[in-house]
Amino acid sequence: MNIITISREFGSGGRELGKKLAIELDFDYYDREIIHEISEKSKMDENYISNMLEAGIVYASPVTYGRTFYYPTAVQSSVTQILSTTGEIIKGIAAKGRSCVIVGRSSDIILEEYKPFNIFVYSSMQSKIARCRERAKPDEHFTDKELEREIKRIDTSRAKHRELLTLEKWGHPSSYHLCVNTTGLDLNDIAQSVARYSRMWFDNFSE
Amino acid sequence: MNIITISREFGSGGRELGKKLAIELDFDYYDREIIHEISEKSKMDENYISNMLEAGIVYASPVTYGRTFYYPTAVQSSVTQILSTTGEIIKGIAAKGRSCVIVGRSSDIILEEYKPFNIFVYSSMQSKIARCRERAKPDEHFTDKELEREIKRIDTSRAKHRELLTLEKWGHPSSYHLCVNTTGLDLNDIAQSVARYSRMWFDNFSE
Repeated sequence: MNIITISREFGSGGRELGKKLAIELDFDYYDREIIHEISEKSKMDENYISNMLEAGIVYASPVTYGRTFYYPTAVQSSVTQILSTTGEIIKGIAAKGRSCVIVGRSSDIILEEYKPFNIFVYSSMQSKIARCRERAKPDEHFTDKELEREIKRIDTSRAKHRELLTLEKWGHPSSYHLCVNTTGLDLNDIAQSVARYSRMWFDNFSE
Repeated sequence: MNIITISREFGSGGRELGKKLAIELDFDYYDREIIHEISEKSKMDENYISNMLEAGIVYASPVTYGRTFYYPTAVQSSVTQILSTTGEIIKGIAAKGRSCVIVGRSSDIILEEYKPFNIFVYSSMQSKIARCRERAKPDEHFTDKELEREIKRIDTSRAKHRELLTLEKWGHPSSYHLCVNTTGLDLNDIAQSVARYSRMWFDNFSE
């Protein structure tokens, strides 16, 4: 079994690259599925969990799930619950023993014992803004400045989330085996090249 | 013409990787040749230049070239001279119009207008110490602690050298197109995978 984890800057195309890489290598793929399972287990709303994992522990709005809801005072304990459930679920994925690509949620740290191949995906701010525009809903009308602020906020939060689990810095090369700048490149082309690199990596480390 | 630049942590195998990559792609290769040319042009000793570029502007021992030598008071102006000569030589290499791999000397910054493919090569401290031991001369007897201190000193100096030329941080992913962790991998295998990645990169950007 081989595991690839993807950490990524918001808007860099890391999620799409992870999906394409999974197809290229015929690996299972986990991203939004993790949020869905956390929601099932914790009885919290998927959007709330997603926001909490993106926006970090300072996020404070009511938690809703079906007709149940909690108020901000419950935020701290719900963060703890989300983090611990995330850990359980990600470990559960690895325990299945099938090769997979897992996007985000500090899976590189959580699955350290499985020696995953850890990739960091990033790009220039201009390219991230352009990608956010491409996938924006029709009623979204952010200026470039606003988008840049939002991208930075989410990335800062990802970094803080990581710091809850490890001393290693998010986005610092030493934490990863390969760091890929997607600026100006076709994600299909990158996926093919990174798939080849991954095979080489697993060949070197397989026992 | 396609240019690849390699920035690297001391002991990470970046130089060897650059050489293998040049062979794999049939590109010219520049590394020590640059020091040799600086020495020719500036009438300074090759080892002095090499130390100066590694140890940065705080390095202060007599400059020798043949029977001529300068004392530390001349250091500041010789640094300026070395930096400016380095720039001229690296631009001269690019002006030849032949595809090449250039290792170090902030060539990624100096050749920005040529849109080079910029790679950062790094590895774990343990792996860097092991590599330094492999290539040590028989009369070198450093402890691991001493080697670690020396590796850090050289890398700090490379970072400072870079800061003389640009605001971008040495070793921060945003400055590069690909960051490669060589820990535990065979450099021949990496060279093949990175060569493929480079071809993809140039295909995407060639006009």
